Amino acid sequence: MNRRKFLKRSALLSGLLALNPIDTFANTDAKSISGTKGKAKNIIFMISDGMSSGTLAMANLYSKNVLGRSTNWMNLYTENKVSRALMDTASASSIVTDSSAASSAFGGGIRVKNGTLNIGANGEKHLPIWQEWKKKGKKTGCVTSVTITHATPAGFCINSSSRNAEPEIAEMYAEIGFDVMMGGGDEFFNPLKREDKKDVYETYRQKNYQIAKNKSDLQNIKKNKPLLGIFNTGALPYSIDKVNDKSFQNTPTLAEMSKTAIDQMKDHDKGFLLQIEGGKVDWAAHANDIPALIHDQLAFDEAVKVAMDFAEKDGNTLVIITTDHGNANPGIIYDADATKKFESISNYKFSNEYLLNSLHSDFNLQQIKDLVFEMNQFSLTDKEALELLSFYNGLEKEDGLYNYKKLPYKLFSEIQKKHNSVGWMSMDHSSDYVELAMYGPGSEQLKPFVKNTDVHQIMQNALGK
Amino acid sequence: MNRRKFLKRSALLSGLLALNPIDTFANTDAKSISGTKGKAKNIIFMISDGMSSGTLAMANLYSKNVLGRSTNWMNLYTENKVSRALMDTASASSIVTDSSAASSAFGGGIRVKNGTLNIGANGEKHLPIWQEWKKKGKKTGCVTSVTITHATPAGFCINSSSRNAEPEIAEMYAEIGFDVMMGGGDEFFNPLKREDKKDVYETYRQKNYQIAKNKSDLQNIKKNKPLLGIFNTGALPYSIDKVNDKSFQNTPTLAEMSKTAIDQMKDHDKGFLLQIEGGKVDWAAHANDIPALIHDQLAFDEAVKVAMDFAEKDGNTLVIITTDHGNANPGIIYDADATKKFESISNYKFSNEYLLNSLHSDFNLQQIKDLVFEMNQFSLTDKEALELLSFYNGLEKEDGLYNYKKLPYKLFSEIQKKHNSVGWMSMDHSSDYVELAMYGPGSEQLKPFVKNTDVHQIMQNALGK
Repeated sequence: MNRRKFLKRSALLSGLLALNPIDTFANTDAKSISGTKGKAKNIIFMISDGMSSGTLAMANLYSKNVLGRSTNWMNLYTENKVSRALMDTASASSIVTDSSAASSAFGGGIRVKNGTLNIGANGEKHLPIWQEWKKKGKKTGCVTSVTITHATPAGFCINSSSRNAEPEIAEMYAEIGFDVMMGGGDEFFNPLKREDKKDVYETYRQKNYQIAKNKSDLQNIKKNKPLLGIFNTGALPYSIDKVNDKSFQNTPTLAEMSKTAIDQMKDHDKGFLLQIEGGKVDWAAHANDIPALIHDQLAFDEAVKVAMDFAEKDGNTLVIITTDHGNANPGIIYDADATKKFESISNYKFSNEYLLNSLHSDFNLQQIKDLVFEMNQFSLTDKEALELLSFYNGLEKEDGLYNYKKLPYKLFSEIQKKHNSVGWMSMDHSSDYVELAMYGPGSEQLKPFVKNTDVHQIMQNALGK
Repeated sequence: MNRRKFLKRSALLSGLLALNPIDTFANTDAKSISGTKGKAKNIIFMISDGMSSGTLAMANLYSKNVLGRSTNWMNLYTENKVSRALMDTASASSIVTDSSAASSAFGGGIRVKNGTLNIGANGEKHLPIWQEWKKKGKKTGCVTSVTITHATPAGFCINSSSRNAEPEIAEMYAEIGFDVMMGGGDEFFNPLKREDKKDVYETYRQKNYQIAKNKSDLQNIKKNKPLLGIFNTGALPYSIDKVNDKSFQNTPTLAEMSKTAIDQMKDHDKGFLLQIEGGKVDWAAHANDIPALIHDQLAFDEAVKVAMDFAEKDGNTLVIITTDHGNANPGIIYDADATKKFESISNYKFSNEYLLNSLHSDFNLQQIKDLVFEMNQFSLTDKEALELLSFYNGLEKEDGLYNYKKLPYKLFSEIQKKHNSVGWMSMDHSSDYVELAMYGPGSEQLKPFVKNTDVHQIMQNALGK
């Protein structure tokens, strides 16, 4: 070993020591951890993608004020069940990460450049944790509300120099043989939708996978076979639209997918690793779409309950609940009627995406006003209706990461702000330190301020690497 | 005792039990607490007013990337020295508080309506904690970077149906006889500036106060006399302007005032209570003024070091470090050059307030461009210079809480955003749950999610009420 390697190794060792339970902050109620302290058989890693601090707070305020109960996430705090930390989410290339670099930090343990998945600066591949422990005998899986091939699940599973290689990622998953993969993304599996016309479902079938296409299919799955569940062409619909548009009623919720995934893997003698992503929280933040944001955060919160219900009974499961980065830093703005205005969001029947997709260029001003009133229960001014219309007759357009149709998301959120008092600092990710909670064996390693890569090491320590 | 009173008392008692050390989350490294566990002789309560989560993160990122060191606040986390919580900051009238209701929640222990100071819905007065313990024999004081009569110090000290009663509050402080009061606000003490021409300084002198008007005066103060330090007409200048405009060099920093206040009170046998407010962090957020925000947050952070240096040696001091509410939810926005752009803030020589006050209606476009380049090191376009000018020749104006001159703060921060990648969700307070850290005896009571009023009770328990 040369000097350089030795120093690197020493630094690595002292890094490990810094995470050693003996040396650290025991900010966990001992009662809440059962099983062997420090060693976890299972891990459930929950990511509400792009959840700024304000998103967590608004979801709880909405839940308390409108639904009459606190969120499951905040109840974990009130009941002293978890350790908490602030997390620095930077990537190798920027203080503001994207989801692929963020997931790679968790999954591969090393920061990479934005846009890449577990590929280092010189092309080296960092072994993703789900892949590593799959080989060591654990069952492994991911569920998400976006495409299953999207950046966040991919960062725990594969190596790719581009997060956009979703058609290839669909094939990589089958090759490695993850046990439960559920979300959207038919476009990357279906021969009629793929550019290369390859039938990737057939690849999975040949590898003994059972394939679910809707919620009903999940009733009939077998436990002893791997499962691929693909429930939409692209991402799944927003939770609020699933509730109010009956055509989506056969799409499972994040909580339902999570329950299914746990049930599929929980009896495996060597344990399991499951990632659960509320992926459309991020998309809603990118679109400044408040009804979508709040209801998808609440859907994520239902999945928190599923994970915690299992982990509390099981006693051998480390649960990590966090986000990969902030997005848009939304918040309720001071106003004489801030409370009432914020609560008026309960009148919104659909996401802004759904509403804006329901408007058409041949609408007259009254039709636009009627539709907005029907869906949001407030009245547009003529000027506002005219401004909205200008985006449909080609006079104006908006850009945005997931805004393929160039719809007026920003304009519409500015109009809504007068009625709901919610503001946004951007339509993109932020550098904020984010919230992280841990429950169960291994969580005693958590320090109050961590880097995203530290969480990888905590998982490895808990698994006993 | 009637049934209603009994129920109220029972509820109060069970509330107290919930905060009892035995029942709670021991998220503190035992080594870091010396002295009698749970009982504090002194309290230092530090409030970075209006500090959103993004402000804390940006100050640390700036400090690390530009100054080469982490902030003192974040070091407390890295070194496992404190307990942490998320805090719900709502007031009696709104989910978004103002500073007077927020300070009343801490100071009086009961939520009141925005705009009021420890006055209940039916006019009842809630005893402010500094006043209560002053009477019980402790020394008590406040230091702030805004007027000493402002909402945050006032909420720990007095009762008033309006936070705007600053001239009266100046007199109330003398009446009660707080031991150390330092900040700005000459306009409320000076007979030449008060509407009623009363010489409030004279009132203080008659009560044996020594009066400091600048930093040099602080060199000559005596320990056995109460101290009033008033260092500007209104609020103190922003920290960045104090560094770069020599005319402000005889104004003490928040850390210097804090050190003086601790030295004045630390030898008192019954202990002391000190509030330290970084009040202009809030004003900078209201103005979306990024150089002012970062440098005033860093000035607050220097005061954190002063407080912690004392408390670590002393062993009997509870230190609480927090904010009263979020404001403007700023953050660094995703961009290919986000890191470089954010670091360019180190080129800004003055606050935006200072810069915008340096522009005049008779400037031509080139003069505006030259001045902005001189102070911020980037070039305005003609269009931007023209837009700025329109605010000086009366064509446009901006409103804002502390924007008395109707200057173009929002426009200027939008221009800066292209160069520094920092966004803002509003120019006002937010409902976000906020960061809270505690050190020392009593901090073991802290649960992971608290209301602002809980912090009052934690202080009372620690003081042994």
